[in-house]
Amino acid sequence: MPTLRRLAVERLMGYHRFLAETRGRVVSGTVTSDEIAAALDLDATQVRKDLGAIGIRGRGRIGYDIDHVIGGIRTALGFDRTHLAVLVGAGHLGRALSSYRGFARYGLRIAAAFDTDPDKVGQSLGGQAIRHTRGLRGFVRHHGIRLAILATPAEVSQKIADRLTSAGIEAIWNFAPLRLTVPQGVCVHNEHISVGLSELTHHLTERDRVRSGARPGPHPS
Amino acid sequence: MPTLRRLAVERLMGYHRFLAETRGRVVSGTVTSDEIAAALDLDATQVRKDLGAIGIRGRGRIGYDIDHVIGGIRTALGFDRTHLAVLVGAGHLGRALSSYRGFARYGLRIAAAFDTDPDKVGQSLGGQAIRHTRGLRGFVRHHGIRLAILATPAEVSQKIADRLTSAGIEAIWNFAPLRLTVPQGVCVHNEHISVGLSELTHHLTERDRVRSGARPGPHPS
Repeated sequence: MPTLRRLAVERLMGYHRFLAETRGRVVSGTVTSDEIAAALDLDATQVRKDLGAIGIRGRGRIGYDIDHVIGGIRTALGFDRTHLAVLVGAGHLGRALSSYRGFARYGLRIAAAFDTDPDKVGQSLGGQAIRHTRGLRGFVRHHGIRLAILATPAEVSQKIADRLTSAGIEAIWNFAPLRLTVPQGVCVHNEHISVGLSELTHHLTERDRVRSGARPGPHPS
Repeated sequence: MPTLRRLAVERLMGYHRFLAETRGRVVSGTVTSDEIAAALDLDATQVRKDLGAIGIRGRGRIGYDIDHVIGGIRTALGFDRTHLAVLVGAGHLGRALSSYRGFARYGLRIAAAFDTDPDKVGQSLGGQAIRHTRGLRGFVRHHGIRLAILATPAEVSQKIADRLTSAGIEAIWNFAPLRLTVPQGVCVHNEHISVGLSELTHHLTERDRVRSGARPGPHPS
């Protein structure tokens, strides 16, 4: 997915979040592009353009019907469908992801979890037994699964990704700290939660430098 | 943290990740800015500028000493220190975060977890009993904690954030789907993992539209 498109998806997610929060508080059930823009620190023109691109138009001063916009975004981003996924890697992170129920609202359903560790295989995860990765390809093919969540150690991730794509996986949510090489047409999203953490630790570190009287040290500009 | 700086931190994290992966494979122990740039789809000038900004310079054709760069980035981003944090919200997401050990390499250590739910308070999380949020302010002050991880439901997040900042918290890693208002000088990073998921579900949805013979539907451009 090219950068621009990715940013548009990010903005649509922002509108979706804001409107879902706002919905219960607004008696009229409508919102203007100015209000959305102000809440998200964007230009109202950008908001109207993004919503127009997914076929949603407001009405003059009345603005947008909140439920209509939410519905439109959910359709455009595919949240109104069920996306069956396999989870590969049942370590701390994999367990964490599978236990988080919030993803269900975006249509995600984890059909099965896989691991290579014989100690983990057979253990319960989300009410199902963890399977051995040797059954991964067959499972994906048999159930026609298109989405995979990759929470494996970096050193095995490429091998698993190859196996997944050869079985027909079209989208990989990659939590492994490794850039994957995949066939054309397969969409990979690399999730790096620790980037958020690094911003905060950097902030604290810089504050210390300033407080200790040191010249604010060399830092990213 | 202004946008530009945030992007610089993101890039430094990318270099750090790439070099940590590369380190074991490179006999010379060095890497050029061209190699880093190629791996991360960036311009080599950008790489040299980012590293120069944190005081790291390469040597002509030899390039950069990998360990030196890794060390420099860790210092700049504060990974070489311990950052004690409180975790607020011990639901699925909070448990998930506290069980993920990967954050330790960035210096994060969760000192205590808090919740308001009487059923959760007293339960074990990461080897410690979950505390009631009424003790949050005192705990933060007593231990001089500066970083908080907020994994609470949206409706209580602002109230908790107020309590945290009044107790001296300087950085909030916010996983709640809500924009927080905080005093100046407090750094907030809003973590929205589901944005990554939405890119993938959008990709799958668009592919279906194309396959079903429909004109690729309206979509974010």
